[in-house]
Amino acid sequence: MNTLLICSGGLDSVTLAHRLHAHGQLAALLCFDYGQRHKKEIDAARLCAQRLDVPFILLDISSIGRQLSGSALTGDVDVPHGFYSQDNMQLTVVPNRNAIMLTIAFGVAAARKLEAVAIAVHGGDHFVYADCRPEFIDAMAGMQRLALADQHQVSLLAPYVEADKTAIARDAARYDVPIADTWSCYEGGELHCGRCATCLERIEALALAGVNDPTRYAHGEG
Amino acid sequence: MNTLLICSGGLDSVTLAHRLHAHGQLAALLCFDYGQRHKKEIDAARLCAQRLDVPFILLDISSIGRQLSGSALTGDVDVPHGFYSQDNMQLTVVPNRNAIMLTIAFGVAAARKLEAVAIAVHGGDHFVYADCRPEFIDAMAGMQRLALADQHQVSLLAPYVEADKTAIARDAARYDVPIADTWSCYEGGELHCGRCATCLERIEALALAGVNDPTRYAHGEG
Repeated sequence: MNTLLICSGGLDSVTLAHRLHAHGQLAALLCFDYGQRHKKEIDAARLCAQRLDVPFILLDISSIGRQLSGSALTGDVDVPHGFYSQDNMQLTVVPNRNAIMLTIAFGVAAARKLEAVAIAVHGGDHFVYADCRPEFIDAMAGMQRLALADQHQVSLLAPYVEADKTAIARDAARYDVPIADTWSCYEGGELHCGRCATCLERIEALALAGVNDPTRYAHGEG
Repeated sequence: MNTLLICSGGLDSVTLAHRLHAHGQLAALLCFDYGQRHKKEIDAARLCAQRLDVPFILLDISSIGRQLSGSALTGDVDVPHGFYSQDNMQLTVVPNRNAIMLTIAFGVAAARKLEAVAIAVHGGDHFVYADCRPEFIDAMAGMQRLALADQHQVSLLAPYVEADKTAIARDAARYDVPIADTWSCYEGGELHCGRCATCLERIEALALAGVNDPTRYAHGEG
């Protein structure tokens, strides 16, 4: 199945890229620049496309990102430290981000006659990010069937939606993902900070999966 | 209900702007520049916002439009003349356009704590544009309820989805829309061409509604 993968350059989506590629299903990577702080993610996504020899489609949607401001991801608010909790994770919510990225991806996939769109949402994000939950993914797929009725139909793949990040870390090892070449940190420094929520989550998932973590962190092991 | 209206500057969405404004429900206009030929639409939408004294939000999504190319609306294919038929109308389909515009609008509305998003899709477009049909609108509203669960909820208004363009033409008269200051033509000339599908549809709807049409057309009455 020729698949367009939404790839941020993080551990989750780069792992899914390698998994799809290993099964001959990866057609292209689609990466969004919505004006987020962590441009290093985009570099990591581009590197992934080069490594797997697939087209890299970078879409600048920073005009949209500015309209969705108030979120820590688009620049005005400090990134919270420590593990995600309901309160500090809300600061990292860009309203409707996954819905926006997915509908654009479906349009690009339809225009290129690809068969599927894939996204690396996972169970660990369910408790705060409504747009990572299985019921959202199902509703999105159903809406898209109707939106593209009479046109080229495109499926939605979200293989980690019922899994957790530890399962993704195991896949990273299984599919030979160069983990140090993925970027998770929300801080956007030279190195992963090692103490923001995504860094802590990454460190924990790799440890729980028993996978060696070659990442250099600015602040010890978090 | 504080409503964000997706406004192209055409007869349909400008009429809906006036109708919402008359009922005290219009908060802002959201207009998309996806690199389409008919920039005059954008000017008409801006003029509408000024007339009704609401904010005008113009979002440049031409980077997305380029990825969705192959459509007559984004520049590479000649605009078909004559009434819409299944074949020539397909050329004006931008894959997933309404789904993309709506998810962005829901994000903007959520960020601004508005209560609803409105779109002026109507029954006359059902036979070719799947993303103008009632079942699509319902699926989109349902998907958005899940995507924004736990956040600010936003409703979807599509009051013309079961009506036809003649009903819109009647509303244009009822709500004092300056019809000559709306732009329907796909050709992007100085005047409405009077012979492309949207011009013919506009002329017909106003005639059927018995509404005086002050529009100047380049080619007689079509």
